[in-house]
Amino acid sequence: MPVPGPGYTITARVSAPPTASSAGDLAAAVGRVGGVVTAFDVVDAGVDHIVIDISCNALNEAHAKEITEALGAMDGVEVRKVSDRTFLVHLGGKLEVNPKISLRTRDDMSRAYTPGVARICQAIAAHPEDARRLTIKRNTVAVVTDGSAVLGLGNIGAAAALPVMEGKAALFKRFAGVDAWPVCLDTQDTEQIIETVRVIAPVYGGINLEDIAAPRCFEIEARLREMLDIPVFHDDQHGTAIVVLGALGNALRVVGKRFADSRIVVCGVGAAGSAIIRLMQPEGPGDVLAVDVRGIVYPGRADLAGDPNLAWIAEHTNAERRSGTLAEALVGADVFIGVSAPNLLGETELATMNSDAVVFALANPDPEVDPMLATKHAAVVATGRSDYPNQINNVLAFPGVFRGLLDAGARTITDDMLRAAARAIAASVPEPNPSFIVPSVFDLSVATEVAKAVRDAAS
Amino acid sequence: MPVPGPGYTITARVSAPPTASSAGDLAAAVGRVGGVVTAFDVVDAGVDHIVIDISCNALNEAHAKEITEALGAMDGVEVRKVSDRTFLVHLGGKLEVNPKISLRTRDDMSRAYTPGVARICQAIAAHPEDARRLTIKRNTVAVVTDGSAVLGLGNIGAAAALPVMEGKAALFKRFAGVDAWPVCLDTQDTEQIIETVRVIAPVYGGINLEDIAAPRCFEIEARLREMLDIPVFHDDQHGTAIVVLGALGNALRVVGKRFADSRIVVCGVGAAGSAIIRLMQPEGPGDVLAVDVRGIVYPGRADLAGDPNLAWIAEHTNAERRSGTLAEALVGADVFIGVSAPNLLGETELATMNSDAVVFALANPDPEVDPMLATKHAAVVATGRSDYPNQINNVLAFPGVFRGLLDAGARTITDDMLRAAARAIAASVPEPNPSFIVPSVFDLSVATEVAKAVRDAAS
Repeated sequence: MPVPGPGYTITARVSAPPTASSAGDLAAAVGRVGGVVTAFDVVDAGVDHIVIDISCNALNEAHAKEITEALGAMDGVEVRKVSDRTFLVHLGGKLEVNPKISLRTRDDMSRAYTPGVARICQAIAAHPEDARRLTIKRNTVAVVTDGSAVLGLGNIGAAAALPVMEGKAALFKRFAGVDAWPVCLDTQDTEQIIETVRVIAPVYGGINLEDIAAPRCFEIEARLREMLDIPVFHDDQHGTAIVVLGALGNALRVVGKRFADSRIVVCGVGAAGSAIIRLMQPEGPGDVLAVDVRGIVYPGRADLAGDPNLAWIAEHTNAERRSGTLAEALVGADVFIGVSAPNLLGETELATMNSDAVVFALANPDPEVDPMLATKHAAVVATGRSDYPNQINNVLAFPGVFRGLLDAGARTITDDMLRAAARAIAASVPEPNPSFIVPSVFDLSVATEVAKAVRDAAS
Repeated sequence: MPVPGPGYTITARVSAPPTASSAGDLAAAVGRVGGVVTAFDVVDAGVDHIVIDISCNALNEAHAKEITEALGAMDGVEVRKVSDRTFLVHLGGKLEVNPKISLRTRDDMSRAYTPGVARICQAIAAHPEDARRLTIKRNTVAVVTDGSAVLGLGNIGAAAALPVMEGKAALFKRFAGVDAWPVCLDTQDTEQIIETVRVIAPVYGGINLEDIAAPRCFEIEARLREMLDIPVFHDDQHGTAIVVLGALGNALRVVGKRFADSRIVVCGVGAAGSAIIRLMQPEGPGDVLAVDVRGIVYPGRADLAGDPNLAWIAEHTNAERRSGTLAEALVGADVFIGVSAPNLLGETELATMNSDAVVFALANPDPEVDPMLATKHAAVVATGRSDYPNQINNVLAFPGVFRGLLDAGARTITDDMLRAAARAIAASVPEPNPSFIVPSVFDLSVATEVAKAVRDAAS
């Protein structure tokens, strides 16, 4: 059963009788309907009543309503107001733009703006490379989306995607000091997305593509990489692939297997799955089976013709040219990597895997297989969730990757840099064990190490 | 003769003999070649030498070199390093993007990013208007340029324009708390500029067009206003027109004339001149003569056919359908407003104006007429410069205008709002006199008053 988490927290302001048992009674009422009280704040107390702000975690909107009603049904208790703490966090947006310079005096203005700024402009006009030294280009990344594949929400469009892009930008700053700016595009036309990013690029030292649907994302990334003199990174592909590769290296260390001896099933060949398969390639895995809703991907499968990405995967995986279902693919497999959909697997399928199996069930919020169940059959289990060990989270990769790219003044990004980042993440866990194959997302040293690895690979 | 200003300041690190007269000798040497010492900092002192950082204002690069050489030519003095303080201000860019929220704990992350953020996205997908409440759209303006008409520098392109746009964004925050972001477009094609701005608009609550060449700027602005549900403002037009209209109202008060009795010559019919003429129209000026390089604009002039802006001006000015030169236009005029080019006028022309003339010579950095000369013949003189009284500076308008628009959640901008802003600027000077027709650019209350006026006009 899912547990109420901090993603859905309400604060109910209630007035209650001023008795000694009031607080306890209120907490008990919340608990009876499954809510988790996280804070009591008495905001007012009178002769005949006290006013308390009760914060509690709920499962969802209906559950929050149930909790509120349970409080209101108590004797002498009145619910005055219910506020949703998550909405409060987002009120007015999550980013601000601040001057790094003083603008207090006329001299300040003369240097930062006219007339002094004219010389800076002329310097850049004469030496375009000076833009990386004298403007925000030096430290600034665009977080670009068309809103077509946002989180688990799907195609919600540019405006509704903005809260996610703002959050991403906030993480960039928090974890790596990178200034990132949301670019939410009111178009889902491949050519227009490419052309728009090309046109706005002068301000940025790098482009982070985000939540753009496959297969459109592949062409957009490839074409922009060709056009622009700044690195282009698609986090849903490369961010995920970096963290998975780093984690998988450690997981194989834990079970004492090598890439060359491992049969790896990758379930899902969208942005993430494709990138994982490509980035893993040079490690020389024993074999890789890519599986999608139509089953195992193999050369000649009817739907490959119009899909260059899928065709490439068919050519470069599946040495035995097998066809079949996901369940058939899993028989004798050493590793399962799911970046697909919830609840595709059960115990039956897991039991057919090789001994000391590794299971990465990364679909979010509900994994391909219940992780508690998976631990019965696999030696190492990882998910995308924060409430189980081994959380595979892109925040381990993207801040450090761009920190390194910007510091190096990189004009492109290569698979070598991505693999260097994966190795740095793996190395952040010196002694991996089944519950610790990736560092905590709050380990700030990871971004520093990733940045260093990328910078070294770039130079 | 121009005076060295803070726009060009160097700091020279010199070692000199440790004598009592060293500092004085160095200052004298700088002064002899026309430099202005602004600071002495002794950074090191030994038995046989002292090391001093001498900061001084210079006229330009050649002058800075002359000052440095004068120092180096002194007995026992060695110049170790010369740094340009203006460049130091711009190093690494002038803006940063900061999270407004805490991201210290897992709970913070759960609310600001996944999974909590999903509910914010869903709320906006269901109610698009919520974007103004729950995202940065509420307080954020795009500063958009194609780099085609930057300051006095002309067509220097997108990358070289960025330092100006960063400065503008910094002013937005400093004067009105508006988050502004530079959008420098690597295209000068009208259609592509329009389409790019349309596509990136979801993130913004307003668009500030900047330094886009005429006549392209007119079409871009008009078309975007039609397309978008956020206000579109072209600062070179409307910002200038607002401040000029406010200042002119006060100037006419000072000389005791009314708009209806005044003959006004506007020299320059690019972005600024055109907007000034249009915004002034409802004040009912006695007559307006628009003048460009071809002389007075009149209906039927050969070059009007392909230029709708110029044709409109010809129709709505010049009641007597006059033709002629700028000098001819000035005879008997009450007001001269120059937004054109340096040094077009001399005493001869000024002497032909009506008594109690008003002269706004706004070409930057060198005005249409020497302001010291103009004061001999005019009752009120204003320029764009900070080193004379009555500086006509757009910073009096644009921060407050957008503060008001954002606070009102305005979807469009009207001439009524612009005129309300002009009146608010004028009213910030309760008792205007010949040296004080506009408030100081550092009077922070102006933005507040302008914002209030715009907000009231918007509702």
